[in-house]
Amino acid sequence: MITDARSGPNLENERLVQGLALKKLSAEILNAAGLTTSDAELVADTLVQSDLWGHQSHGVLRLPAYVARIKSGAVNAAGKPLISLDRGPIAAIDGAGAMGQVVANTAMHLASVRAKEFGVSAISVRNSNHFGTAMYFTLSAARQGCLGFLATNASPAMPPWGGTRKAVGTNPWSWAAPAGKHPPMVLDIANTAVARGKIHLARQRAEPIPFGWALDENGRATTDPEAALRGVTLPMGGHKGYGIALMMDVLSGVLSGSAFGSGVAGPFQSEKPGQVGHFVIVLDIDAFIPLHEFENRQEELIASLKQNSLADGATEILYPGEREAILEAQNLAVGIKLPMETVKAIDILCDEFDLANPISS
Amino acid sequence: MITDARSGPNLENERLVQGLALKKLSAEILNAAGLTTSDAELVADTLVQSDLWGHQSHGVLRLPAYVARIKSGAVNAAGKPLISLDRGPIAAIDGAGAMGQVVANTAMHLASVRAKEFGVSAISVRNSNHFGTAMYFTLSAARQGCLGFLATNASPAMPPWGGTRKAVGTNPWSWAAPAGKHPPMVLDIANTAVARGKIHLARQRAEPIPFGWALDENGRATTDPEAALRGVTLPMGGHKGYGIALMMDVLSGVLSGSAFGSGVAGPFQSEKPGQVGHFVIVLDIDAFIPLHEFENRQEELIASLKQNSLADGATEILYPGEREAILEAQNLAVGIKLPMETVKAIDILCDEFDLANPISS
Repeated sequence: MITDARSGPNLENERLVQGLALKKLSAEILNAAGLTTSDAELVADTLVQSDLWGHQSHGVLRLPAYVARIKSGAVNAAGKPLISLDRGPIAAIDGAGAMGQVVANTAMHLASVRAKEFGVSAISVRNSNHFGTAMYFTLSAARQGCLGFLATNASPAMPPWGGTRKAVGTNPWSWAAPAGKHPPMVLDIANTAVARGKIHLARQRAEPIPFGWALDENGRATTDPEAALRGVTLPMGGHKGYGIALMMDVLSGVLSGSAFGSGVAGPFQSEKPGQVGHFVIVLDIDAFIPLHEFENRQEELIASLKQNSLADGATEILYPGEREAILEAQNLAVGIKLPMETVKAIDILCDEFDLANPISS
Repeated sequence: MITDARSGPNLENERLVQGLALKKLSAEILNAAGLTTSDAELVADTLVQSDLWGHQSHGVLRLPAYVARIKSGAVNAAGKPLISLDRGPIAAIDGAGAMGQVVANTAMHLASVRAKEFGVSAISVRNSNHFGTAMYFTLSAARQGCLGFLATNASPAMPPWGGTRKAVGTNPWSWAAPAGKHPPMVLDIANTAVARGKIHLARQRAEPIPFGWALDENGRATTDPEAALRGVTLPMGGHKGYGIALMMDVLSGVLSGSAFGSGVAGPFQSEKPGQVGHFVIVLDIDAFIPLHEFENRQEELIASLKQNSLADGATEILYPGEREAILEAQNLAVGIKLPMETVKAIDILCDEFDLANPISS
């Protein structure tokens, strides 16, 4: 674990950390907080993977909030997701209030097994919590030659279209697909104009946010992340994002019997069980079309996109998920640049649990 | 069929037409052009239904373009969709180049039957054409107590993110769900930032358009509607809309073995078969949760949205699909206001096929 001269002028604000070591330390912290070893390793992998993809808003930055929820009992650290309904291609899972990552991983794994048997599988999930980054789970289906879909509801983050008070979550959703010789194509969308975690990151970095991301508590546009976090985030694409977010809640919350709308608690509420619902669909591509043919067609589609002429200011045309794959390779080679505030937060957790801290500030 | 004083000052530009009569006439035109009686009635119903919902861009305005495609043979007027793969919860349909409405209706009907048997159904559709309004078909699933999903690819309408030339379709998608005592909740999304007609309108009014709607012919972001009309429309929500549009093409085109990307032909290209692909998922709600419980929860969700405080300029908070249901009731009671240009286009079709024309201009 090193601070590296390559981090250059940001040396005081950032620390260069190797992914493997960060994952080991994160797992130790989560294990010390109360998760089983295997659950702690899974959650640590999802967090560090987000950092590797360049999604620091969903990376180890989240450790203190997750630990707080485990300590308060809001997350059931010992919870084991149960299959509460099992009818072949469809199933329902009761997450038992466990970490959302543990629940989502269980659901996506079961859905992939069932899709291989029936061609399609749909799984409704209740009584879960925040699972971090949706694409972590859908990618596991894509790597098995499947199309994977995962949606979740989330604590209120935006008003209904025409309203002023938070009532609808970001309710992220993801589709992932194999892409032949390329890393998988993967979409991971929060239905707000911006993922709320990016506003947290901006606050941590003391940077302004662009207009159009959020309103303050008085319903005015703001560039201040503090004010935005007290106000409401706007939906992406205006009323379209509101509609999509609501339908993801119908799939995740209304269908599953979990909480929905304002009833869902978020990852930064340390005391309340999330009561989050998820929804999973997996399709076995080979049941529809030979997988190699699908992959050839994906390569053809991607090649046709890259042949387009470049717009003003653009340097490259990427397919969804490609940027994350490029950043992962870079960050695995060079290390992850962690904001010093995150490093310090990890210090505090290491002190609390009396853990050796190789990335101490 | 009447012109009504209520159309008031717009009398010269609009004609008030009753939905039932418009449907009958549209079916006669489509039948005369070559569709079977039942196919003509279905397509006419989809078009007039769009007008009733206030989506005139997908209403009888489209009749001349559809007729041109039937006459040229680009659409196979006698085509009968065939089930080419049948494995219980999954199936594939070859649309035989028939009208997209006929193909989509066949696929959605089969998917609903299979979902009732297996809990979930997924159907991949190739060799189809433009089907009009996606929500027409997903609503049929919702009315049977199901959650219905339908996606399609479409002719190129936007560049890939960072590009300047059209290569990705609008690729619309729809989810519909029952909503208890309310009309169904239904989402129907095109993934472009704005319908091209709104840019035409801004030019007419000599008003600037917002950044994010379009690029000029040199690939630069523009607020000039003239320049925008020489350039390309951008995706909704920036890169997010691009990613969604692309993934809908993967589901609809790549998976089905139909055309994808720039290979898809559109409804205004009178000579080329569309080679459009669709993708359908239907879930039987009752297989997951008692339908009445789902519907109660939907009513609760909708009530909670409507309790929100109103933003500046807003008069009501609606759920997705509610505006269409309100407009349908109004238009059924009062009649559909058809632009005189559409009335005249129908005149021409009636003349061509020697049909009595009760809405003659």
